[in-house]
Amino acid sequence: MAVVSQLTGELLPVGGVRFAAVEAGVRYANRVDLVLFELAPGSRVAAVFTRNAFCAAPVQIARGHLQQAAPRYLLINTGNANAGTGARGLDDARACCEAVAAQASELAGEQVDARAVLPFSTGVIGESLPVPRIVAGLPKAFAALGTEDWLRAARGIMTTDTRPKAISRQVTLESGRQVTISGVAKGAGMIKPNMATMLAFVFTDAEIEDALLAQLLREQVNNSFNRITVDGDTSTNDSCVLVATGAAGAVIQPPSGNGEGHGQGAENADYRAFVATLREVFAGLAMELIRDAEGATKFVTVDVINGASSQECLAAAYAIAESPLVKTALFASDPNWGRILAAVGRAGVEGLIIDDITIDLGETRLVEQGGRAAGYTEQQGQAEMNKQDITITVDLARGLCRERVWTADLSEEYVRINADYRS
Amino acid sequence: MAVVSQLTGELLPVGGVRFAAVEAGVRYANRVDLVLFELAPGSRVAAVFTRNAFCAAPVQIARGHLQQAAPRYLLINTGNANAGTGARGLDDARACCEAVAAQASELAGEQVDARAVLPFSTGVIGESLPVPRIVAGLPKAFAALGTEDWLRAARGIMTTDTRPKAISRQVTLESGRQVTISGVAKGAGMIKPNMATMLAFVFTDAEIEDALLAQLLREQVNNSFNRITVDGDTSTNDSCVLVATGAAGAVIQPPSGNGEGHGQGAENADYRAFVATLREVFAGLAMELIRDAEGATKFVTVDVINGASSQECLAAAYAIAESPLVKTALFASDPNWGRILAAVGRAGVEGLIIDDITIDLGETRLVEQGGRAAGYTEQQGQAEMNKQDITITVDLARGLCRERVWTADLSEEYVRINADYRS
Repeated sequence: MAVVSQLTGELLPVGGVRFAAVEAGVRYANRVDLVLFELAPGSRVAAVFTRNAFCAAPVQIARGHLQQAAPRYLLINTGNANAGTGARGLDDARACCEAVAAQASELAGEQVDARAVLPFSTGVIGESLPVPRIVAGLPKAFAALGTEDWLRAARGIMTTDTRPKAISRQVTLESGRQVTISGVAKGAGMIKPNMATMLAFVFTDAEIEDALLAQLLREQVNNSFNRITVDGDTSTNDSCVLVATGAAGAVIQPPSGNGEGHGQGAENADYRAFVATLREVFAGLAMELIRDAEGATKFVTVDVINGASSQECLAAAYAIAESPLVKTALFASDPNWGRILAAVGRAGVEGLIIDDITIDLGETRLVEQGGRAAGYTEQQGQAEMNKQDITITVDLARGLCRERVWTADLSEEYVRINADYRS
Repeated sequence: MAVVSQLTGELLPVGGVRFAAVEAGVRYANRVDLVLFELAPGSRVAAVFTRNAFCAAPVQIARGHLQQAAPRYLLINTGNANAGTGARGLDDARACCEAVAAQASELAGEQVDARAVLPFSTGVIGESLPVPRIVAGLPKAFAALGTEDWLRAARGIMTTDTRPKAISRQVTLESGRQVTISGVAKGAGMIKPNMATMLAFVFTDAEIEDALLAQLLREQVNNSFNRITVDGDTSTNDSCVLVATGAAGAVIQPPSGNGEGHGQGAENADYRAFVATLREVFAGLAMELIRDAEGATKFVTVDVINGASSQECLAAAYAIAESPLVKTALFASDPNWGRILAAVGRAGVEGLIIDDITIDLGETRLVEQGGRAAGYTEQQGQAEMNKQDITITVDLARGLCRERVWTADLSEEYVRINADYRS
């Protein structure tokens, strides 16, 4: 099961980025499971990684390499997460980077350092990475490097995803120059704020200096991948990378003025346009992960508004979004508002007054004054619940903050998928 | 589905307690759904309630009544939680108490105040309580008051439970006097620390003064009902009551000496014996809730040992016990230790060193030095996982604290039950 995709639009090449996705037989035969991205010299790369204390070997290696050299290659395998693999896992991840560097040096005639390769892995935890198979797949990958087939790259990083996720957007700057942003992502379960069993790679041909690139990535991740939850689990391998190659010959500058992009010059206009487009790409990919969440039959937006702080809005939103009882009711298309109310009640928000709160399902008011809204009928609730896209809005009526979280329902298929995953 | 019960032993009357369970048709016909407990004058009553900010009307009323009068009656209905019912819900709960008081005054010839009645409700949230049906059931309940059929009382408070939970234990004090403790509980889903959609009523014929009774209840709840989790949800109606009637003519005194029961006198010996027996009753009921958790096929004990604080042990234990990925692996009898390790990693324990941690499944070492334990075989793990009772032990190797949490697996049936609950 999965909810209908809403990713639209043509997928576009990004100047300075070539890539390939090949079958390396990491875990299964006949499956595209190895993806290589090649970045033009001079590309800037920012990355954020899982906060799981037990981060996988490739995360540790990628984090280290990023500090030591300018990345030229990203290598991603599925089928094996190389997590919980101890010292050997680190050696294995390094060995893959060295193999990429060696091949690149041989083919390109330029010396590529192993530290210019960032490794990423996703798949089963606790098995040793089959390095020989990955290394054996590299020549095919180098030979296939191209600029076009984003869907194949997106397919090459999938695990339990039912479909590839890729999106492109363009923005024309005041100078008339056009900047492209294209990205791919994977992740269907073990998804929760502070990343997920997810990988996302977003590329732009704009030129962006390191500090701004890192800031943009943090901001965008915070409002996209850090606002989705499937099952409250956080993985050992989550990584999100933003690459700016500079090939478009257009520079995105940090905004002048108050530092929040509200200045009035052409550069600030470019900045705002670029950020808005970047947000479309990140939010588009993040929502798509939820639309394809394991066993999902509903795409659910939880809006908590008029809270006293962002923190309490998020606490209430996640209490709803992670409640198995709310999620099974969503699966059943049951407008069981009592479960939503109970979830808000246990969110740990201090001094919450039940009588002030309202809860809406789509356009229908469910709850007011501590109980079922006057005039509410089960028929109305049922009509909202029968939709595939559902919005739950909780008005805390005690401040000006708001937060939005996206989630999916909890179906029997979720259990089946996760009970069967290793078999 | 449910895991085999481990409640054993005869169920015993408690002096000073009479009870009845009748069919009142609160939500369904032909179902025992109304339970009345009558307590002898002079009984002491302690209670703890849900910490959900949106506690149900009966919880609010019971809390208030407890401060105003010595309880003589406990009235429990299933089929309707009287939660999310606003001002009307409070009126309804009060009306039930008044009806009990009126009947009691009429039948017993003594004046019983409505505030001497504590109301408890469990069932669907957000529907008005059918007060007339409950009131109409009361004469039958009063007529049936007796001392014997604890299983019927336990059945009368069930919702999605598949079987009644009741337990009795006796302890002989140094004086030769015998003290009895009997209790009933319900709860199968929406269960998590700080209570659950659970109700528990424990009665003893010992004499215990109010402050000690309240302290004993807090301690016991903390190590029983506050250590179980099914789905991480906390309900609006959770209540746990401990009653001491004094009918046995034996007084349990607070321990002298250091206040923790380590003194040497006969009274302290009595205290220790009583507390140990009380613990058997509370832990027995709490574990039984998990054995009958919605869709449960496994009973899982999570022990986190050698932590630097109780708090971090609990954080790690709940991260495991509430992880849908761990729980679906348990359902599949899959020794997927990577998911357990990943759960510990995201528990938010500061400065955790993966290489120091060991994880055991029963007697089998799964994880050491950041990866699969040397010598571990899938066959060993599978043999442990095939058991119905499973213990996961995580050794954090950084302190002297330990905590234990009980949970169940996550099955397709859990989803089915909760997707169907209102239909």
